[in-house]
Amino acid sequence: MKNLLVAQSGGPTAAINATLVGVLQGVRANGKVDQVYGAKNGIEGVMKDQLIDLNSILQDTKAMDTLTYTPSSALGTCRYKMKDWQVDEEPYKRIIETFRKYDIKYFIYIGGNDSMDTVDKLSNYCKSENYDFIIMGAPKTIDNDLNSTDHSPGFGSAAKYIATTVSELSCDIGAYDIPAVTIVEIMGRNAGWLTAAAALSRANGHPGADLIYLCEKPFDTTGFIQDVKEKLAQKAGILIAVSEGIRDSNGTYISEHTSSNAVDNFGHKYIAGAARALEQLIRSEIGCKVRSIELNLMQRSAAHITSETDIIESLMLGQKALSCALDQETGRMASIRRISDVPYRVEFISVPVSEVANHEKLVPLDWITPDGHDITEEFIAYLKPLIQGETNIKYNNGIPVHMKLY
Amino acid sequence: MKNLLVAQSGGPTAAINATLVGVLQGVRANGKVDQVYGAKNGIEGVMKDQLIDLNSILQDTKAMDTLTYTPSSALGTCRYKMKDWQVDEEPYKRIIETFRKYDIKYFIYIGGNDSMDTVDKLSNYCKSENYDFIIMGAPKTIDNDLNSTDHSPGFGSAAKYIATTVSELSCDIGAYDIPAVTIVEIMGRNAGWLTAAAALSRANGHPGADLIYLCEKPFDTTGFIQDVKEKLAQKAGILIAVSEGIRDSNGTYISEHTSSNAVDNFGHKYIAGAARALEQLIRSEIGCKVRSIELNLMQRSAAHITSETDIIESLMLGQKALSCALDQETGRMASIRRISDVPYRVEFISVPVSEVANHEKLVPLDWITPDGHDITEEFIAYLKPLIQGETNIKYNNGIPVHMKLY
Repeated sequence: MKNLLVAQSGGPTAAINATLVGVLQGVRANGKVDQVYGAKNGIEGVMKDQLIDLNSILQDTKAMDTLTYTPSSALGTCRYKMKDWQVDEEPYKRIIETFRKYDIKYFIYIGGNDSMDTVDKLSNYCKSENYDFIIMGAPKTIDNDLNSTDHSPGFGSAAKYIATTVSELSCDIGAYDIPAVTIVEIMGRNAGWLTAAAALSRANGHPGADLIYLCEKPFDTTGFIQDVKEKLAQKAGILIAVSEGIRDSNGTYISEHTSSNAVDNFGHKYIAGAARALEQLIRSEIGCKVRSIELNLMQRSAAHITSETDIIESLMLGQKALSCALDQETGRMASIRRISDVPYRVEFISVPVSEVANHEKLVPLDWITPDGHDITEEFIAYLKPLIQGETNIKYNNGIPVHMKLY
Repeated sequence: MKNLLVAQSGGPTAAINATLVGVLQGVRANGKVDQVYGAKNGIEGVMKDQLIDLNSILQDTKAMDTLTYTPSSALGTCRYKMKDWQVDEEPYKRIIETFRKYDIKYFIYIGGNDSMDTVDKLSNYCKSENYDFIIMGAPKTIDNDLNSTDHSPGFGSAAKYIATTVSELSCDIGAYDIPAVTIVEIMGRNAGWLTAAAALSRANGHPGADLIYLCEKPFDTTGFIQDVKEKLAQKAGILIAVSEGIRDSNGTYISEHTSSNAVDNFGHKYIAGAARALEQLIRSEIGCKVRSIELNLMQRSAAHITSETDIIESLMLGQKALSCALDQETGRMASIRRISDVPYRVEFISVPVSEVANHEKLVPLDWITPDGHDITEEFIAYLKPLIQGETNIKYNNGIPVHMKLY
């Protein structure tokens, strides 16, 4: 009874399969696990007995490489919040049933806050019932909002995509000599880490983003219009990066400012994003050419421009999670501790998953400049190492090669 | 009096600077031009006497390489439509004045339909006035709607970005097991070439785009809902690609269907895109999870994933335009003639610019499948060579290196 089950959960990233491969590499290297299974669609697949045999891929070095650079969760994903077992024990029983059916000893769950909550609850349940199953977490989220890890795998690649895209967009915008504003909306309901990555677009001395607003600070529309006017007085085309979750001082999402009363022909409310709301605002308050851009799912799935640092760390976290599991650690998460920015040095550790579950790590307010529309040098020093290095993506027929596990 | 002036115009692309570099490479190689200037912001910069000295870059091989892979128009761009000289001769006189001031003999204008109209009018004006200035055009447009050339430089790179992105998005969408529709809106008001490139997302056997609607065929919303329901019966997550310019049988843009009556708090009309309109439609008619994505300016500025074929052809067209100019050709455009699909073979020729100016090349209707929601194998054979090959982009500080000329 030394079989292993691995699953993925939450919003996909461009690096989550690298962590899966890290687990498989570890299994391959140490020979301490008999059979390896993957659950389809996270914990739901465990409950529904939907397991995939991963043993055959273990011998296939090329397939493991292709999987490393395949975006999204190759095992499928879910959004499932477990209730306490005192409230509803049934899901827990079904999970244990599957574990027993396949002789699973080790379960590694790759995911974000909600998934770490599952790891926490499930490991506590096992302890209380005296089951000796080992439940380990491995982190992932492009949002970088996980507690007790210096940063989250998947974030660096999303940040590299954002920095590159904003740099390219600034070239596009800079070609025109008429006053125009372009607003780029970046993922992050509560945490502005990804939006801050827009600042890295200036890394090579190019203009990049002119104004950057994170959701951690209340968004003042009057001050915003003033900021835009000042920038427009200096140059023709300006580029603004905003978090999707920017809110005013009352806590109302800026995206609700314009969408609340707008209805279409069918009487349905419009759900506009933050950038679209600001587009409307600039059109009415300034009247210049204005365009809004949402980086949408591309920022989490652009595997063709992953950060080498991120991919290697994601692999390492999979290996670390496995290593901890084999050392009989349970209810913990593999994690990154930063030793230094320059040179960039990290170590891989494990932390109690209870520190991670249901917490959200926000950008420290003193990493936002006092004027509220940029980030500090200290923040850039934190971000910069995470997007370094390019990956050797394999192309076939002109597009990157991706892998399907089912 | 053997100086040369080059300028760029219209919507930027990821390959338009490669054509500029092609012109400069030609100058560097043949030594038949004394001085090289670039006009800022296209023909407007010629009229306003805003010229940039490009001689220094000629000796800098590394800078030429960086410029090749810099997105957007490094010389700046404009949207300027010249009136006939019989109606307003003033702009023509100002252009000739600049030519004389800088001893310009050769003028090469890189652009799309409107820019070729400028080349046509200006060359005819010179002929009628017996001026011996040489006016040559070099094509560019991501839209691929230029007449008298097999395809347009810039299109292949945009198509590669679209095929790659749709492939990555299909991985993301495929990770969920709940019914969901994702609609990707792709540039093209009248021509669906770019939207068709979404079909190349399936090149490696992955699902890619499930339904593809080009703007050349009237868009039937009832049939569309039926198509979506049929696909949803087969799989959970489906991916749809549509041209921004899809219209119903009355010629009304689908984007106007929902936006016409919707107003925000200020009473401003909403300008929704086609995908957003279809998102509303699916929400009301099917009621499943639905998301719309606009590839927006990224599809024309994503220089980090340019097509090697496109970049090399773009360089060659700049060299060809120069070569024709030195052979005293005027009022013509450098162009690509395809010899075969497999192996992919082309030759570079020149065509009368009057064949190109103010024309729009649409997708042949028999390249759209009879069911109206896909493209034919013949079309794929046309598209496929254009996205082949990857370019060796230089990175610094984690993002691609771009060049500024002013």
